[in-house]
Amino acid sequence: MNAGIIGASGYAGAELTRLLYRHPNVSKLILSSISYEGENIEDLYPNFLGRISGPLLKAEDVIASSDVVFSALPHAVGESYAAASMEKGIHFIDLSADFRFDDDEQTYTAWYGKKYQFPHLHKKSIYGLVELNRQKMKEAAAKGPVIIGNPGCYPTGASLGIMPALCNKVFRDNHQDECPCIYNNLSNIPIIINAVTGTTGGGREPSKSFHYSECADSVAPYKVASHRHSPEISRSLQAMAAKGNIPPPQVIFTPHLAPMNRGILSTIYIPLSEKWRVSKADKAAPSEVTGLPSKEIEEKTNEIRKLYDDFYKDEPFVRVMPKDVIASTGRVRHSNFCDISVHIDINGSTLIVVTAIDNMVKGAAGQAVQCMNVLFGFKETDGLETIPMLF
Amino acid sequence: MNAGIIGASGYAGAELTRLLYRHPNVSKLILSSISYEGENIEDLYPNFLGRISGPLLKAEDVIASSDVVFSALPHAVGESYAAASMEKGIHFIDLSADFRFDDDEQTYTAWYGKKYQFPHLHKKSIYGLVELNRQKMKEAAAKGPVIIGNPGCYPTGASLGIMPALCNKVFRDNHQDECPCIYNNLSNIPIIINAVTGTTGGGREPSKSFHYSECADSVAPYKVASHRHSPEISRSLQAMAAKGNIPPPQVIFTPHLAPMNRGILSTIYIPLSEKWRVSKADKAAPSEVTGLPSKEIEEKTNEIRKLYDDFYKDEPFVRVMPKDVIASTGRVRHSNFCDISVHIDINGSTLIVVTAIDNMVKGAAGQAVQCMNVLFGFKETDGLETIPMLF
Amino acid sequence: MNAGIIGASGYAGAELTRLLYRHPNVSKLILSSISYEGENIEDLYPNFLGRISGPLLKAEDVIASSDVVFSALPHAVGESYAAASMEKGIHFIDLSADFRFDDDEQTYTAWYGKKYQFPHLHKKSIYGLVELNRQKMKEAAAKGPVIIGNPGCYPTGASLGIMPALCNKVFRDNHQDECPCIYNNLSNIPIIINAVTGTTGGGREPSKSFHYSECADSVAPYKVASHRHSPEISRSLQAMAAKGNIPPPQVIFTPHLAPMNRGILSTIYIPLSEKWRVSKADKAAPSEVTGLPSKEIEEKTNEIRKLYDDFYKDEPFVRVMPKDVIASTGRVRHSNFCDISVHIDINGSTLIVVTAIDNMVKGAAGQAVQCMNVLFGFKETDGLETIPMLF
Amino acid sequence: MNAGIIGASGYAGAELTRLLYRHPNVSKLILSSISYEGENIEDLYPNFLGRISGPLLKAEDVIASSDVVFSALPHAVGESYAAASMEKGIHFIDLSADFRFDDDEQTYTAWYGKKYQFPHLHKKSIYGLVELNRQKMKEAAAKGPVIIGNPGCYPTGASLGIMPALCNKVFRDNHQDECPCIYNNLSNIPIIINAVTGTTGGGREPSKSFHYSECADSVAPYKVASHRHSPEISRSLQAMAAKGNIPPPQVIFTPHLAPMNRGILSTIYIPLSEKWRVSKADKAAPSEVTGLPSKEIEEKTNEIRKLYDDFYKDEPFVRVMPKDVIASTGRVRHSNFCDISVHIDINGSTLIVVTAIDNMVKGAAGQAVQCMNVLFGFKETDGLETIPMLF
Repeated sequence: MNAGIIGASGYAGAELTRLLYRHPNVSKLILSSISYEGENIEDLYPNFLGRISGPLLKAEDVIASSDVVFSALPHAVGESYAAASMEKGIHFIDLSADFRFDDDEQTYTAWYGKKYQFPHLHKKSIYGLVELNRQKMKEAAAKGPVIIGNPGCYPTGASLGIMPALCNKVFRDNHQDECPCIYNNLSNIPIIINAVTGTTGGGREPSKSFHYSECADSVAPYKVASHRHSPEISRSLQAMAAKGNIPPPQVIFTPHLAPMNRGILSTIYIPLSEKWRVSKADKAAPSEVTGLPSKEIEEKTNEIRKLYDDFYKDEPFVRVMPKDVIASTGRVRHSNFCDISVHIDINGSTLIVVTAIDNMVKGAAGQAVQCMNVLFGFKETDGLETIPMLF
Repeated sequence: MNAGIIGASGYAGAELTRLLYRHPNVSKLILSSISYEGENIEDLYPNFLGRISGPLLKAEDVIASSDVVFSALPHAVGESYAAASMEKGIHFIDLSADFRFDDDEQTYTAWYGKKYQFPHLHKKSIYGLVELNRQKMKEAAAKGPVIIGNPGCYPTGASLGIMPALCNKVFRDNHQDECPCIYNNLSNIPIIINAVTGTTGGGREPSKSFHYSECADSVAPYKVASHRHSPEISRSLQAMAAKGNIPPPQVIFTPHLAPMNRGILSTIYIPLSEKWRVSKADKAAPSEVTGLPSKEIEEKTNEIRKLYDDFYKDEPFVRVMPKDVIASTGRVRHSNFCDISVHIDINGSTLIVVTAIDNMVKGAAGQAVQCMNVLFGFKETDGLETIPMLF
Repeated sequence: MNAGIIGASGYAGAELTRLLYRHPNVSKLILSSISYEGENIEDLYPNFLGRISGPLLKAEDVIASSDVVFSALPHAVGESYAAASMEKGIHFIDLSADFRFDDDEQTYTAWYGKKYQFPHLHKKSIYGLVELNRQKMKEAAAKGPVIIGNPGCYPTGASLGIMPALCNKVFRDNHQDECPCIYNNLSNIPIIINAVTGTTGGGREPSKSFHYSECADSVAPYKVASHRHSPEISRSLQAMAAKGNIPPPQVIFTPHLAPMNRGILSTIYIPLSEKWRVSKADKAAPSEVTGLPSKEIEEKTNEIRKLYDDFYKDEPFVRVMPKDVIASTGRVRHSNFCDISVHIDINGSTLIVVTAIDNMVKGAAGQAVQCMNVLFGFKETDGLETIPMLF
Repeated sequence: MNAGIIGASGYAGAELTRLLYRHPNVSKLILSSISYEGENIEDLYPNFLGRISGPLLKAEDVIASSDVVFSALPHAVGESYAAASMEKGIHFIDLSADFRFDDDEQTYTAWYGKKYQFPHLHKKSIYGLVELNRQKMKEAAAKGPVIIGNPGCYPTGASLGIMPALCNKVFRDNHQDECPCIYNNLSNIPIIINAVTGTTGGGREPSKSFHYSECADSVAPYKVASHRHSPEISRSLQAMAAKGNIPPPQVIFTPHLAPMNRGILSTIYIPLSEKWRVSKADKAAPSEVTGLPSKEIEEKTNEIRKLYDDFYKDEPFVRVMPKDVIASTGRVRHSNFCDISVHIDINGSTLIVVTAIDNMVKGAAGQAVQCMNVLFGFKETDGLETIPMLF
């Protein structure tokens, strides 16, 4: 099978190139780049020397020669290639945000500043979070060519951490919606996602934010309360809440940059529903909480861990951490894993979920390959077998 | 003036040594170390070569020759030196947790596993957060020797970020306490503190957690829902809530380790009181939030920034960031500053406060020197004038 | 085939585990550890969760059940396992220094402080630098079980950079030996190897040298003029000089630690033989060298690059960099490549060779797997196909 | 005294600003920037907030209001400001390369591609390596305004490490010049300087080389055999050799980039003169060197350390490391120190000198302040008292 990559010169494109090169079902890679058309990929990425080489073509030529097309272009420039792929009858997996909002053009436009060019394409595109939409993807692929909106890096880590809680009403139950207080609509008690990314999330283009001397040895929040992944996360959670038959939650999402190359760590705070709250917490004044987490908290944590374990038991890339292991980015580097650990805060009111992914793999190129595997009926781990190293 | 440092061989002790060496009112440093007694400080810290040298003595000798004593010992071993200092009539500034809980022995024992050895000393010790207790410290010093419980690194960053909100009822108002819903007691809507520290917070003793190969290129939460700074933060906020005449808030605190030497970044989520909530947020379904923060959110953010600005206008070490600047640890390194930026989440329900300190300076040694300056009536910036560098 | 790893709990053992797990000819891994006997490898390395697990056995049990044995024990403790493997008739690949000195017990003892326990084993062991000894290894394996002394990390990077120069008399010719000056014996004009390693070279055991707070943001030489890899490099070069029919060179080797996880960069200074020296350099006073490298230097550099290219043209893991690309560790991470670039200094007297390897792969576990592939006649790249990523 | 900084917006300018702000004899800073004229320095460097602020003026205005002018402009743009300063009668300290070559316009032009604009100015400018030219600087300042060519970062670390060896004939003696062998002119046995810099050496402008994702976790040589600091080092050593009454040495200089913010580590290989060579080394075949450094090597090392110690005994910023301490960049960060350790290689033929400086302080802004202190007769440590921290 020939796999085409449009926009192979950026980081996501290069990572895709690296992963697909070793995919057992891909015999040939066809690459394009707008900025570096005509150059050899190994001149841009000397790490590929002696293994991966070949000229960077035009996008059109990629589509013409490929059996599946990945697009790693920036947002708002690749829609026409999706159209061309559909016309040719081949799957199109888009790593930009263009196909992550289905037919909700209003939100897309509000955040990305552009209208849809081919509105009809967005009616049948699928959000490529495999753990959420595997069935949908398979069914669509059985009928014809599919457009996948490959999830953003932050939304991937956040969604996988929250999904089991929403689908199992750990987050809250309907009763709570009826209270008349200021927090009367519980959608107003938000789920808080505090996330930290590595620098590759900023891509290949040098800029002050990613200049070594200024981002090394520092942790810095950015786009607080205004990051484009906020509405994408909201939409993703909305779909999950629908599965759990509860109203969609409000979300607060704060991204940070840390001095590391790869990884997204999401620390997620989910208010517990009445069933899961540790009762003492409702009554105790804070000053009474003098000691370590109670036995009851420990037991409920174990139950929720079990619930997460069950939820993901057939997933090849989601690992729920055993008791006493906390997810961290260092242990998923270079792999397609999403590691998840669950905790309950000391007061018993809030579920703390920690998720770790490699932003370039599960958060971008790896997830795109996983989507391809699903669409084509390949083994889902094909090309994604790397065991992460601790160091 | 002679300044004594008990436990000078650890990181906090060494940083104290470095700062006090250049303090205009300190003419001589007298150092002790239990583990390295008899050795020369410059053999342990070759960075001191040619400038700071001298043998590490016994703690008793330090007290005998000093006009003020700093203790940078581990928790639960230095109480007797406080007693000896009081007896001699000199101030004792303790960087361990031993004197951070006043007479609340129950909480201290629950978290640190030890009883008070000299209970009466804890009745008059003062929590050394200068911005909270400056007046108290001055008054006490006027009467005699004082014991200072120098605040922990995390509690410092958290407290300074939350204090103006609690004292000004930004956090909530009394009305909210009366609602009958599951969140009836608003102490149950917690303030969430998501904090990231650099590695020096772990001290000088090598261990797997701080082994370069395993902590580099990774962000890792630790002691989730069970860190000893949780009760210290709760106590600190309790004092602030009392000033604001509101009930004490519940707190969720999650510490993380990032690959940087110095710094604590605290991202703090404070539910807004009715007055400060952006009204639309109460009614809007989440899916309606399609765009960027509204004008109303921007205005309220400006008002809260103004409020923080006013609150800290006379503080020499607290800097409230102007609009469009977000606090980050890289800009406070090696200084005693606490940088603070304020934001309102996109739904208008929550104040997001970001604070950044150098954990070794404002979070430890620098704050201790600041305490000394207050107790002795020195200029508060003496010895703490370092301008942080960006790189 | 079953592969056994003695000492699987250390970094080299864990990296071997990770690589062999995906080796197409290895069906089962059998692991041992002295310190962690009885524990599960995935408890030590949570990055293996869900993929690699199993108890850590005794070394004896590993040998009993394996078809090839790797030993990743510290120096001077594993000789008896080599003996047991020979007795059983299976290959033994030792990652320690024990079998790197053949029958030169004197040098081994001088540097490692221990006598050989089984001297006869050292008479037929082979130094596992495949690029030097491939033929020897194949021939020996054809006759029976073999002991491989897997090269040290520094000697690997140094040897591969120097080998073509020694074998082709780039380094010097015989004439030079006869001069009566103080440098009369040209073995006295040393080859200088200035090498920088990442922190994984220090292994898994925490210590002050590898404590994040002290090794981050710093470059530090260590064991200057006294590192154990000096005699190993000397021996390796001696074998190469013999191939080139020239006297063995003297070597100066200076190791440094840099704040990175993986990689060894060797910058090697090789005095050029008369044939290769740029003539002008002999006459010109230094002040005459006013400009950039001359055309003649450029041409000779191209010739030497060609010579290196030819020398390594059939090697699967050695990449000679094209003109204008300089080897660096970032481009070989996680791969078994050794990247090499060649340069001539501005005065025309010295060849500067830069080599880059991943110390854990080509410098340890990867090279050991490469040895296994050679001994068993597998494809040499089996299990070692990882394409390095730039970021 | 008013101090002016032309080009204050770059890293060197900002570091100068930071240092001079706290200089006891500087009452006012006057800053200019070409790119950011009219902006406030604290908008570019938010780390200065609340301490250093003020508009960035035109260079002309800086000269008009200052009593001393520092220029931190790029090479080849600031000559006219030097002329204007001379005309006004005030000292001009230039951090660019423009005044580092005295009247050797040929070399300057060959490497920097530009002719001198005011040739007469270069006849009386002084190379600002205080340890070499202190007396010259004092004498010139006594007579009138002076132009200082502040040394480059690499040349500073290299020169200070080599100076005592050249001035004391440790490097070689005259006899060696007469040998007829290929190495007949001993200027052909070069001094090798293998140097590693931190990223701030690349300045404030983002580029691929300093993009975090590509320079983190990697060590990379650059401009091998073609760095502009080569001729500057040659010139500096020429002046020292003249003091030692020996011919100037040839130099090989290889710069590397390591993932750290600040610091230059120079590992310098100096062939020993007959007097200092360990005799055994002349005769021994390399294979005879089986053990650790001999007693004789140790003794000669001690003698050379003593010689270095004596050479620098009155220097406030040069620290010769005691036995068993090796210089490293981590221990000079943020200080004006140059740390030096000396070693002899195991064969006894070569002196290995390691030097460490902070490239932004002793390698740029700090050295410039030191020059100012000398010119004005201030205490040489004024404004430069920072004690480096280990972490």
